[in-house]
Amino acid sequence: MLEGMAKTGELALIELIRQRAGKAKGAVRLGIGDDCAILASPAGEDVVVTTDFSLEGRHFRREWHSMESVGHRVLARGLSDLAAMGSKPMAAFLSLALPREFAKNRDAIYGLLDGVLSLSMEFSTPLAGGDTSESPSDHILADIVLLGSVPKGKALRRSGARVGDVLYCTGSLGGAAVELEMLSKAPKKFRKAKAGGDHPHLFPVPRLKAGQALVKRGLATACMDISDGMSTDLAHLCEASGVAAEIEAALLPLHPLAQALSAEDGLQAALHGGEDYELLFTAKAATKMPRMLGGVPVTRIGKIVAKRKGRAQVMLVGVDGKRTELKPQGWEHLR
Amino acid sequence: MLEGMAKTGELALIELIRQRAGKAKGAVRLGIGDDCAILASPAGEDVVVTTDFSLEGRHFRREWHSMESVGHRVLARGLSDLAAMGSKPMAAFLSLALPREFAKNRDAIYGLLDGVLSLSMEFSTPLAGGDTSESPSDHILADIVLLGSVPKGKALRRSGARVGDVLYCTGSLGGAAVELEMLSKAPKKFRKAKAGGDHPHLFPVPRLKAGQALVKRGLATACMDISDGMSTDLAHLCEASGVAAEIEAALLPLHPLAQALSAEDGLQAALHGGEDYELLFTAKAATKMPRMLGGVPVTRIGKIVAKRKGRAQVMLVGVDGKRTELKPQGWEHLR
Repeated sequence: MLEGMAKTGELALIELIRQRAGKAKGAVRLGIGDDCAILASPAGEDVVVTTDFSLEGRHFRREWHSMESVGHRVLARGLSDLAAMGSKPMAAFLSLALPREFAKNRDAIYGLLDGVLSLSMEFSTPLAGGDTSESPSDHILADIVLLGSVPKGKALRRSGARVGDVLYCTGSLGGAAVELEMLSKAPKKFRKAKAGGDHPHLFPVPRLKAGQALVKRGLATACMDISDGMSTDLAHLCEASGVAAEIEAALLPLHPLAQALSAEDGLQAALHGGEDYELLFTAKAATKMPRMLGGVPVTRIGKIVAKRKGRAQVMLVGVDGKRTELKPQGWEHLR
Repeated sequence: MLEGMAKTGELALIELIRQRAGKAKGAVRLGIGDDCAILASPAGEDVVVTTDFSLEGRHFRREWHSMESVGHRVLARGLSDLAAMGSKPMAAFLSLALPREFAKNRDAIYGLLDGVLSLSMEFSTPLAGGDTSESPSDHILADIVLLGSVPKGKALRRSGARVGDVLYCTGSLGGAAVELEMLSKAPKKFRKAKAGGDHPHLFPVPRLKAGQALVKRGLATACMDISDGMSTDLAHLCEASGVAAEIEAALLPLHPLAQALSAEDGLQAALHGGEDYELLFTAKAATKMPRMLGGVPVTRIGKIVAKRKGRAQVMLVGVDGKRTELKPQGWEHLR
């Protein structure tokens, strides 16, 4: 646990993380420094757990992403999974392997940790442990683990959608893919981008409050986050629930960056762009859905229909009213 | 969660893991396949969490370690941390990034998973999730996350050792380092080594039952696992507890492989050899310590003394009765 680099004498990375992470709090009885962290078990609640790799060259590039963005995105990926279950964060664990040369760059490491810790503060998610190592290659390797709590039996799953349910999403779509495209063409323009601005790719905001509201008010039948793109993720939800779906192009809430493109390009970004980290969820047709949840707009985008042989799992109703099959073409990280 | 490779079409790795991992059981309400796994919260108990990287080139080598050994060691590292806290495993999460070429080798992947899953079965630790990705380099990258439960407030910590306590360890020392040395010289000889034989480096056995017995019978004041070598780990324990320690060379339980060396070399392996994954713990002098705990021998090896300015944190009493400072020279993975 967080010892790999300190013991090699290369860098007191654990000590640095321990200082920055601050004292154990919330559910954390014992944080960084022992063989395990100790968390108070949430009485009457279930524990949800997710782990997500963020590997340089696969999920980010040093030439494109500032270290603050890398750190932010590492944690945001995991928090978005907690949001999708409607859970409240308990603690985060960060495994971090740094290339030997990079490990000497204290400013870069501070930047990375600031990216993680600013977001962890914002969402009351104490960093309670992890592991450190030297990377075996020239790639920064991170794995984030998030634990959350959710009232017993109430966690939102992908598998609860039923025929006749209405399909919703939070926030807006396509912004992350368009920003990534812009970033790849002119990374320098984005060097000073900060969390808090509207940077859907560089600093995505996990929809924790919206997910928690869905659980608290019992609104959703199924939920997941949109990490691989609507067309791919909706197919996953349909698969898990044993249903099919139909979405309407005219209803999709495009991010301003996607709206600025041609109608066709904007639609493609919204349908297939990855890493929007919005929530995709279903509710019974009779459920009165608020227009906002946890401070984010909620938009009806389609409906759940029966799965039938010979019919596509996801159909898209175009703005011209024409029905076509929507094949999963989710954005594959940095490819 | 466990989607990275399936969606690229390279390999249905998640599906393979899901099939091999079997149905959710024990504390696991929902396993592989959703945004998070769902675990029942252990009533009246604390939750302990550990994460450990196993990176090719740092923690193992494909030329030396069979895939079964790699998988076994990935999980054993984490289980040993649970043992050190005296906890009972709840679930494991495996993040796995495979090089593109390697991912085509189904036998190798089966071997790796068998290594993980055989040990997870043996210690009733269901594999409940994780992540998959393509590795950005030619290295296999694994990160294991373990959750365990322990009666509230009873988890063993490194920080509880007090002056006058007696120092103990489980099992035997130095075997892993000597086997690694042999392995590096003649890897072919070890190709058929299997779990269940006495292979302290290739197939270490985490001391879960011994750790649990320490908690159940209230025997220990502090505990940790010996992963970096006695000299390094004992220094950590002393540091965390604010004490110093004295160990006696004549008392150290050498593994048969270390006994086969010269007296001096055997002692060095026991003192500085890493990855023995035995437990190092302290108890009050008045505590009657059983000779076996959880099926493993327990040996008194020294005592806790006061920390004093100008005195070394750990002293070694040689077989000749001479006192010398024992400096941390823990074995640094594959260096």
